[in-house]
Amino acid sequence: MIRNYFFSFLRNTKQNKGLITSVKQIAGYKPFRLELFQLVTQHSSIAKTLPNGFKASNERLEYLGDAILGAVVADYLFKKYPFKDEGFLTEIRSRIVNRESLGQLARKIGITQLVQEDLRASKVNYKFIYGDMIEAFIGAVYLDRGYKFCRKFIIKKLLIPHFDLDQIIENNTNYKSILIEWAQKENKEVAFEIVKIDEEKRKKEFHAEVILNEESFTKGIGLNKKKAEQMAAFKACKALDIL
Amino acid sequence: MIRNYFFSFLRNTKQNKGLITSVKQIAGYKPFRLELFQLVTQHSSIAKTLPNGFKASNERLEYLGDAILGAVVADYLFKKYPFKDEGFLTEIRSRIVNRESLGQLARKIGITQLVQEDLRASKVNYKFIYGDMIEAFIGAVYLDRGYKFCRKFIIKKLLIPHFDLDQIIENNTNYKSILIEWAQKENKEVAFEIVKIDEEKRKKEFHAEVILNEESFTKGIGLNKKKAEQMAAFKACKALDIL
Repeated sequence: MIRNYFFSFLRNTKQNKGLITSVKQIAGYKPFRLELFQLVTQHSSIAKTLPNGFKASNERLEYLGDAILGAVVADYLFKKYPFKDEGFLTEIRSRIVNRESLGQLARKIGITQLVQEDLRASKVNYKFIYGDMIEAFIGAVYLDRGYKFCRKFIIKKLLIPHFDLDQIIENNTNYKSILIEWAQKENKEVAFEIVKIDEEKRKKEFHAEVILNEESFTKGIGLNKKKAEQMAAFKACKALDIL
Repeated sequence: MIRNYFFSFLRNTKQNKGLITSVKQIAGYKPFRLELFQLVTQHSSIAKTLPNGFKASNERLEYLGDAILGAVVADYLFKKYPFKDEGFLTEIRSRIVNRESLGQLARKIGITQLVQEDLRASKVNYKFIYGDMIEAFIGAVYLDRGYKFCRKFIIKKLLIPHFDLDQIIENNTNYKSILIEWAQKENKEVAFEIVKIDEEKRKKEFHAEVILNEESFTKGIGLNKKKAEQMAAFKACKALDIL
């Protein structure tokens, strides 16, 4: 019994040391509250249930980190592009902060180190785990060191070294073609319609609709037909969860 | 000519004084950078276009304020409810931060004072303007005074005095009935199906689908049938923009 305790203590210490090293490598500082980062490693599939019935997984941290990341990226883009409108800013932000790109980022910065053996053994989808984990990690840094520090961490350690903004801006994903492709595969009918051109505004505004199986599905507004259709298609892709 | 200049100067000064008073009333401090709050009042329908073709409206500030508000509310709820899961936190946040509730909040705190005469004269939908304006106002406070100050402003001046969290939590909006009502009005067919019960997880997980005109539309997961259906219905309401 005592022996077991002793070994579990040793194992924990070794694990903790590894965790401290990982956090240092990723965030550039020794964590103040190690328990926050221990929680980062607790994917819901392996998380322990507390005596009060609450499951201590990283999902709460992920929810928090997602919001903080969104705010920091919003702020960063706002200041970097003083003459770009909110449509541009929203679009570029969503290209940075999405599961796919966060998953790639997680691999680059070594979040993979934080995946524990019992999680490796389980059969969860890694593609999602990594992106979730990076958000949880951001949540932990925020709670450990506050907004200002966390903002610096996100900008200096994540955004600047790992995202080429010029390339992200150039890469005009064609949501219309993504939607059309999906519809063909799923055997649905999809069409695009310009339903209104608003000439009352100083600049003409085009209103487009995605028609899915003959029903109006999503709407988009833009300064030309193409932009309006792309926005409607983007919303449809989001609603259908196919991005 | 000179006379016109003179009067425009007087008018501006009077407007500025009014604006300073309004900001003081709403945020509790005299603005450092008044131009930020001048921008808050510039709804896109009346905003000036700069020589470089950029329209100086409050929409960029609104984008920023939306993100900051999201982060602050996320943080606030995270700390207030240490044993609630992220589903609860996300849901309560969305009940606080939505257009309808922000519009009501805007009226309560007197954002209406910031609506200028030329905007009053135009025929825009006020319901939306106020909620947008409050987000822009938050963006301006954030840029003017930083995150920490803005966080305090949001919590002490907006959240605590104007939102009764217990009541918000109790108010279990029934998304299923909202969706059914909408479908009847719009002459659509809507149905709910439990498509899977996952017994492999520690706790059973129910997977529900909203079927719209005989097509799978949105999905929801929950620890019981009702919760799964509500989540699927909530997503459908969001996708259809009927909340």
